[in-house]
Amino acid sequence: TDILNKAQLVDARYGVKGFVIYMPLLMNIIKIIYRLFENELDNRGHKSILFPLLIPKENLLKESEHIVGFENEVFWVTEAGGDKLDKPLALIPTSETAMYPAYSLWIKSHTDLPLKLYQSVQVYRHETKATRPLLRSREFLWIESHNVFENKTNSIKQTEEDNEIFTKVVKNTLGIPFFHLLRTDSDKFPGAENTYAFDTMLPDGKMLQIGTTHYLGTKFSKTFNIKYLDAIGNTQLAHQTCYGPGISRIAASILAIHGDEYGLILPFEISPTQIIIIPIPHKDISQDIMEKYTKNIYNSLSKNGFRVNIDHSQKTPGEKFYKYDIEGVPIRIEIGKREIIKKQLTIFRRDKREKIIISETDVIMNINAFKDDILHHMSKRALNWMKTKTKTVVQLNEISDSITQGFMIFNMPFCGKEKCADNIINNTNGFEIRGYYTDTSSQSLNCIICQQSQAKLICVSKSY
Amino acid sequence: TDILNKAQLVDARYGVKGFVIYMPLLMNIIKIIYRLFENELDNRGHKSILFPLLIPKENLLKESEHIVGFENEVFWVTEAGGDKLDKPLALIPTSETAMYPAYSLWIKSHTDLPLKLYQSVQVYRHETKATRPLLRSREFLWIESHNVFENKTNSIKQTEEDNEIFTKVVKNTLGIPFFHLLRTDSDKFPGAENTYAFDTMLPDGKMLQIGTTHYLGTKFSKTFNIKYLDAIGNTQLAHQTCYGPGISRIAASILAIHGDEYGLILPFEISPTQIIIIPIPHKDISQDIMEKYTKNIYNSLSKNGFRVNIDHSQKTPGEKFYKYDIEGVPIRIEIGKREIIKKQLTIFRRDKREKIIISETDVIMNINAFKDDILHHMSKRALNWMKTKTKTVVQLNEISDSITQGFMIFNMPFCGKEKCADNIINNTNGFEIRGYYTDTSSQSLNCIICQQSQAKLICVSKSY
Repeated sequence: TDILNKAQLVDARYGVKGFVIYMPLLMNIIKIIYRLFENELDNRGHKSILFPLLIPKENLLKESEHIVGFENEVFWVTEAGGDKLDKPLALIPTSETAMYPAYSLWIKSHTDLPLKLYQSVQVYRHETKATRPLLRSREFLWIESHNVFENKTNSIKQTEEDNEIFTKVVKNTLGIPFFHLLRTDSDKFPGAENTYAFDTMLPDGKMLQIGTTHYLGTKFSKTFNIKYLDAIGNTQLAHQTCYGPGISRIAASILAIHGDEYGLILPFEISPTQIIIIPIPHKDISQDIMEKYTKNIYNSLSKNGFRVNIDHSQKTPGEKFYKYDIEGVPIRIEIGKREIIKKQLTIFRRDKREKIIISETDVIMNINAFKDDILHHMSKRALNWMKTKTKTVVQLNEISDSITQGFMIFNMPFCGKEKCADNIINNTNGFEIRGYYTDTSSQSLNCIICQQSQAKLICVSKSY
Repeated sequence: TDILNKAQLVDARYGVKGFVIYMPLLMNIIKIIYRLFENELDNRGHKSILFPLLIPKENLLKESEHIVGFENEVFWVTEAGGDKLDKPLALIPTSETAMYPAYSLWIKSHTDLPLKLYQSVQVYRHETKATRPLLRSREFLWIESHNVFENKTNSIKQTEEDNEIFTKVVKNTLGIPFFHLLRTDSDKFPGAENTYAFDTMLPDGKMLQIGTTHYLGTKFSKTFNIKYLDAIGNTQLAHQTCYGPGISRIAASILAIHGDEYGLILPFEISPTQIIIIPIPHKDISQDIMEKYTKNIYNSLSKNGFRVNIDHSQKTPGEKFYKYDIEGVPIRIEIGKREIIKKQLTIFRRDKREKIIISETDVIMNINAFKDDILHHMSKRALNWMKTKTKTVVQLNEISDSITQGFMIFNMPFCGKEKCADNIINNTNGFEIRGYYTDTSSQSLNCIICQQSQAKLICVSKSY
């Protein structure tokens, strides 16, 4: 929250609880994150679409498990143009019930499958928990990808592709580590067979869900009549998946995880300004020479596709350093008397707060190397912090000591029984079972509570 | 509407009146149009922002002229999470009353000005007129740019820049001709001092407003308390402008104006697929050779930044031609036996429906030339059609004959008096005064009705 205000990322004074104004720096970051995901989806044959914001009440109510999960969170439009509407319309809390009646019209045959569509939208949930800008808002930004397949095998493959995209964008491009967890039955998306979640850890050790993938099975296709004729002429229920990278929460985790006491530290790939050039005037250097030197560097960076700016404003160099530190610009280039005389550049790396002097002629080669090293360094730092907070425990009595030592995430073997789950919760004050790890080999473990074998590793933590 | 269905651009079966589903081809076109405008705004120092979708009722009601214009069109959220809201929230019909309370917080001094912010959003109006997909919907897509200046001079300059951006994007990139008109007082945006509109003509001769720019003067700054301290310490009311390119309507006019009986004809710059390569198998040509030849062309086009695809599907070449004709892909490259043997390519230009044979080695040079010529040809054809429908008249009795001859747009000198306006309307069944031309030199003209001198040219037409 401190960083949010300092860097003018949101303005929370809009006057409607749970709604904030997304300010320009944040909005530009968000647009770039959207584009990263959309490019990955486009390249894999998903197509962009846009459904209306409003859902007829009867459609929202159709899937019984689904509506139970959302009925206490829906915003209703009941009047328009001075008149009461015959049928109330819901602001989309999530788009299944907006999209699937149309899917039923579009899908007739196995040749219509797979159908892979996504939309980049805001959704609306009247959260009853305390709202917090970007972390828990009543209006949030995400992508919803809704896919239809002939069978379970292809659906599960899609959930794996969803994970692959998330890994490529969030881990490998934004440097944010996350766990891929299969939520337990009591914590599934309303209407789903399986819910896989992407959880990251914020600096205080609490987990934040930044995306989900659901295998819906045939629950919604039964309700919304999404059927196809297979190759031999039999009518089949379609299998469905949906995928929701939470763009405002991913932005929030970038700000919180990478930032330091000086402000934001933005990953190079999504910083609206990747390189800021700051001329430092000196009485021995004419304005002409300074301008020519800075412009020359600017042009060569710009020509190579970097988002670069020169700060020509009247502020002192110190004020400018302070400002770009807050805004998290990954690379600052200082150009003063020494740089011009020696044909050098002073590079300041925001992530390490480290100055390096390079030759003017090597600027592109160096920036490319810095770019990679910045991501590497930021990813490693974030991952290490998560690791230092994480502990694998096999005996219940290890937990309370570990909490005292500052551990916040626990991996433990669990048999799956409700009684053991209750026992885990009761022994860890305020912690939750976040789900099963999907990437561990199924070695033979004994449940931390009942010692039964065939237990699987789960993740237990506090959460937002 | 015929084209909309044929090319699967919208699906109107969503089930809520005035709301449609934007299908993938249309959505991709729309995303590119958004990017064209956003780039122009970004390059001129406008910044992207996002305000909440919902406006508190008391803010919406604050500006008295403004609310009179919208009160019969607002969708109201009155319930959330099962409870009635204390204060109803409006879905944004337009964002002045969402944004300006925040502007009042942000603007303190002349050094905070100009403030130039825009958002790309959907807005909601419960239209009482018959709705038509893209042309008149209850949910439509646009950009809203809201700008604040110290004085009228700078504000008017902004409205000129708005026109410059519109010209660059809509006329010079999309090939859509338009009139820039100053609306008469009775037809202004509710709360504006001046309203400038961008009107284009659809093939049937009726005009469609595809964007507006308003000089708001100090009306809203008075209501929302947007004041600044000037350089000598006096408090001043800020001057404001707003600008709204209507993205869904611009898309609609591209489809309607450029299309022909075979389907869409998309401007090269915004076609999601700019070039489609169609291999035409022949028994004398091995599959290997065909694949190598097409892949080679594909690679060189793709490397040069063109959006190109190869259609490998099982359909016949004829079926493929038909499909891409409907979808309006600007250039089709046919590769068959003759092309491979002679190291040639057969190019089909969608705009002229003309085949040209070029040498394989000249492909990039040729595509670049075609690209320019396609835009030139499409622009000219659209402009000419508008010109053949337009007539300048100076005597009232010329009008009815001209209508019989098929003219749909009339330029005529008008003194500005209400009585003469009524007379014009009464003499032209179903026509409207669209406003004053902004680009004519003020020669001495006599009003078509009262013959008074100092009249100015107005545009009279039917409209959507």
